[in-house]
Amino acid sequence: MTLATVSFSPGGKEASVEAGVTLASAAALAGVPLRSPCGGQGRCGKCLVQARGKLSEPTAAERRVLSEQELSEGWRLACQAVVVGDAQVSVPASSLVIEHRIVAEGVGRETVVEPSVQKAALRLPLPSPDDARSDLTRVMDALGGRVAPPSRAAALRHLPHAVRAQHGQVTAVVIGGELVDVEAGDTSEACYGVAVDVGTTTVVLYLCRLGTGQVAGVASGVNPQAQHGDDVISRLQFAVSTEDGTRRLQREVVGLINDLVATVCQQAGVSRHAIYEMVAVGNTCMAHFLLGVPPLGLAGKPFAPGFKSGQDVGAAELGIDINPAGRVYMVPGIGGFVGADTVGVILASELDVSNGLRVAVDIGTNGEIVVARDGDLYACSTAAGPAFEGARISQGMRAASGAIDSVTVDGAVRYHVIGDVPPRGLCGSGVVDAVAELVKAGIVDGSGRFRAPEELDWVEEKVRRRVVRNEGGLEFVLAPAEESGTGRPVVITARDVRQLQLAKGAIYAGISLMLSRLGLEPEGIESLLLAGAFGNYIRRESAVAIGIVPAIDGERIVSIGNAAGVGARLALCSTSLRRRAEEIGRRVEHVDLSQEPGFYDHFAEAMALRPLSRLG
Amino acid sequence: MTLATVSFSPGGKEASVEAGVTLASAAALAGVPLRSPCGGQGRCGKCLVQARGKLSEPTAAERRVLSEQELSEGWRLACQAVVVGDAQVSVPASSLVIEHRIVAEGVGRETVVEPSVQKAALRLPLPSPDDARSDLTRVMDALGGRVAPPSRAAALRHLPHAVRAQHGQVTAVVIGGELVDVEAGDTSEACYGVAVDVGTTTVVLYLCRLGTGQVAGVASGVNPQAQHGDDVISRLQFAVSTEDGTRRLQREVVGLINDLVATVCQQAGVSRHAIYEMVAVGNTCMAHFLLGVPPLGLAGKPFAPGFKSGQDVGAAELGIDINPAGRVYMVPGIGGFVGADTVGVILASELDVSNGLRVAVDIGTNGEIVVARDGDLYACSTAAGPAFEGARISQGMRAASGAIDSVTVDGAVRYHVIGDVPPRGLCGSGVVDAVAELVKAGIVDGSGRFRAPEELDWVEEKVRRRVVRNEGGLEFVLAPAEESGTGRPVVITARDVRQLQLAKGAIYAGISLMLSRLGLEPEGIESLLLAGAFGNYIRRESAVAIGIVPAIDGERIVSIGNAAGVGARLALCSTSLRRRAEEIGRRVEHVDLSQEPGFYDHFAEAMALRPLSRLG
Repeated sequence: MTLATVSFSPGGKEASVEAGVTLASAAALAGVPLRSPCGGQGRCGKCLVQARGKLSEPTAAERRVLSEQELSEGWRLACQAVVVGDAQVSVPASSLVIEHRIVAEGVGRETVVEPSVQKAALRLPLPSPDDARSDLTRVMDALGGRVAPPSRAAALRHLPHAVRAQHGQVTAVVIGGELVDVEAGDTSEACYGVAVDVGTTTVVLYLCRLGTGQVAGVASGVNPQAQHGDDVISRLQFAVSTEDGTRRLQREVVGLINDLVATVCQQAGVSRHAIYEMVAVGNTCMAHFLLGVPPLGLAGKPFAPGFKSGQDVGAAELGIDINPAGRVYMVPGIGGFVGADTVGVILASELDVSNGLRVAVDIGTNGEIVVARDGDLYACSTAAGPAFEGARISQGMRAASGAIDSVTVDGAVRYHVIGDVPPRGLCGSGVVDAVAELVKAGIVDGSGRFRAPEELDWVEEKVRRRVVRNEGGLEFVLAPAEESGTGRPVVITARDVRQLQLAKGAIYAGISLMLSRLGLEPEGIESLLLAGAFGNYIRRESAVAIGIVPAIDGERIVSIGNAAGVGARLALCSTSLRRRAEEIGRRVEHVDLSQEPGFYDHFAEAMALRPLSRLG
Repeated sequence: MTLATVSFSPGGKEASVEAGVTLASAAALAGVPLRSPCGGQGRCGKCLVQARGKLSEPTAAERRVLSEQELSEGWRLACQAVVVGDAQVSVPASSLVIEHRIVAEGVGRETVVEPSVQKAALRLPLPSPDDARSDLTRVMDALGGRVAPPSRAAALRHLPHAVRAQHGQVTAVVIGGELVDVEAGDTSEACYGVAVDVGTTTVVLYLCRLGTGQVAGVASGVNPQAQHGDDVISRLQFAVSTEDGTRRLQREVVGLINDLVATVCQQAGVSRHAIYEMVAVGNTCMAHFLLGVPPLGLAGKPFAPGFKSGQDVGAAELGIDINPAGRVYMVPGIGGFVGADTVGVILASELDVSNGLRVAVDIGTNGEIVVARDGDLYACSTAAGPAFEGARISQGMRAASGAIDSVTVDGAVRYHVIGDVPPRGLCGSGVVDAVAELVKAGIVDGSGRFRAPEELDWVEEKVRRRVVRNEGGLEFVLAPAEESGTGRPVVITARDVRQLQLAKGAIYAGISLMLSRLGLEPEGIESLLLAGAFGNYIRRESAVAIGIVPAIDGERIVSIGNAAGVGARLALCSTSLRRRAEEIGRRVEHVDLSQEPGFYDHFAEAMALRPLSRLG
């Protein structure tokens, strides 16, 4: 057995591997997350690296993808090149998986960072007797064509001062190929954008340096529209039945976004005038509310939205407090309630270019499910409700300080609290864990029924006495009053278990139906991606144990974080990915679950609290 | 001698002509104003008509311009076809001179009416289970491509209601190829634009029906910026030296424009929401003020403007009170102070496609002069000051009710008053007439000096006693106090004569210098076009007698009315003419008179009150 050392730059990570493994495996061992949309078949060329050292000869697959020139420069496909001895590998940012790629310092040859916003520092000749060109012509000539003249008077208004303030040194701001502003001096470094994930419950906003794609600040807050109902249906009704309802919802979310912009600007020491674009994702209703479009068609079948394609409008028109010349790009949606957030998930996870059977589940107030099979894409939305975000749970709360986020019930009850403080309630992952543990302990049965203490003779006394009867029925005390931060015990009630069953039943039924209409079974899922903040925190065993997701090997279940937000950042930093988002919006087939035969049977079955596989 | 009858349609005009004359001559006799940019040489093809009856065979020139097919359909060039006997002629609107063409009912084969604003009535299929397309897609599909999606959220906001209000009957509003709004029902008839001539002293606004080019209403008012000075230089100084100066000037002119819009809307019974575009002309300063662009470069040499090319901006951004989705197109300028109004004059008078030596003089607060020689174009601006508009004249006033607009002084003094009321003052043409008559009578000499009554022994007593001495010097009483509407005599003073001399000296020196730098003499001018309201009212004999314009045959001097305003209407109603305006803006050579050697000599000489020809 020969051990070889493979080192990776930038970053300096190393792996000691047996000769005979691929560079891709070595990278995985070293913790360098390479892309692999084709599943290591040497077809997609996305795992491209430049390597020196002892490696196998290029394979036929590599010769198909790479030119002689490239091969001679040491470019290899990591999934094909086999380690023979020590090797040094240089990894372009473009070959890193996307979450890493976008935060990477540099950009590779497949340029990811190509934002719609471009700033160009120009030194203009000042007017002279031989050169009485207008200020505008002076700038347009210096930009050398290919830029459209301004369509707003504001750009012209700044011109005369800007041209004269610093001896002709100006910075032209170009968005989407149009000159939108001219600033005095060289301000080309001050070029930011914000990506915002407008969730029904939570709004998350990222400040990004557009030149590099780096995240310079993050802030989040509770969507103030929640005062009109915590689910999209209540807000739809508010919008269509209240005088000025849509406009109020619009102002509310814009108010929060502006607060978040102020917060990230302060974090990063950046002026809001240096922010030129906002890219937003969100479900179909959130997209309508953000743009102030009455969601009339969404109030009933066939759920025809006002718009579905990507929208590019002025920030000022929406009241978004960034540079007044700035734009807002709303990422396209898919259909019905499946919106731009799902397009963001697909963009970030590259499901649109993946092979095999992959499923992504974005768990928020709604649960969106994407099934990708060899490039064919299907998506649906399930009304999971906000239980996973801690809402509609008697002592539910957001995943913030004081929230119980994991629970174990065996001989004793143990829990973990976010922020190392006394517990005040449960967040989504705490609810899931608690229910999974109560089921495992037999305190709750597979139908979701609480067993009374007198039925629980096999349970240890100190656990059994935590099952108490209250006016609402039975409940389980996770933390007694003396441990709690509120002076009241933290409990999970029979009603809470029912809420979780409804939420997870909707999601499981969605996955199950989507697969069964394709004639597929859950066992065939090669990877199941859990997106959304919740997906980051949930324990996979618990999710499988109570049948939120199909019972497949835990290693096939991957948490991908706030993929919708990552998708928004990608669309912010790359016009070509923005075009890909448009294509995804057109390409994905929207499935209306309520039209599928057997939906209610699946749903009823999927509420069972046990590991689940094929239903129906 | 054979007489033939030639009848013209539409309109039914007839002429009895001798056989042997051209159709163009017959049309002129009948009062049908045909175009003739090439001067009847059969080259430009603009006098195209369709004729039946006894006419000469097509000439070689016609065979060059017209196809066999066209000739067989009776198409002829009016300047070539000779009348042999009775004939019936159909005149397409495109062959009429432009002022008539734009107000004509129909449009010819060279479509003049092709506005940037298009409304399309659409009947959309409503959403159904098989068709859950978005409202936007529904509209875009019905428009059948070639239309860009909206760049404003407002268009989207109206969509859902519009689509559902009248069973899918909607009207799409497309401006410049972009969908900007969708209205419920068929509103395609309600499609208007406004053309506005922003003068330093007077603002004139035309309401035009975009489908036909017809004028539906006209209103005018005094530019409220006059409170900061009656000439452009004072306003420039106000703009650059006052905090927020440009913005105040912008608000003032927009306020007036909005009042004028309200007036024409009331006149025509049209909602301002049915107005989708405004096209504006005005000198360079007025253009800057309208768009709110600080005129920093215009405050000193080399007079580099902030912008010169045509600008297309949102009406809402400027505060113009038309449809909020509407646009404002500012016609391009030429250079220095020669602005969009001059481009409008050239567009309306077709100087850019004319032959020979032609001169246009647009007399307003500034006097702009265009010299066209076989398609080469030169333009300059002279600071004539507002004397021709009645300002800086002791009893000057606008050409409104109560203004003396013509004067005769021989044995007695006679005058005409606008509105058949007692006189209250003099308008520009009244001043010119009065001075010309006083010079003719010898009361004012060629240098502009008033002769004292005692020197005027050849003047009849009743006229001589009207020359009176006042604290300011000598003056002439046009209307004694008992005839006047103000209780004071209406007089013209020595200072008034001086003001007129300055104004007309600047204009004449401009014409003279422009010609002399081309090595040309005033005698060579084939036609001299007088534009501006003043040009309509001035008596040509008076203008020649005191040397406002060169001493050429009166018939070569043509008043063309508010050609700048006509130019704005043409650019409003025709995108191809708008493109031509852009070309004119680029093509015309701007001449800075103050840089021309001999300017002050020309100016001094041109102040003489006598018929003038070549100076210097």
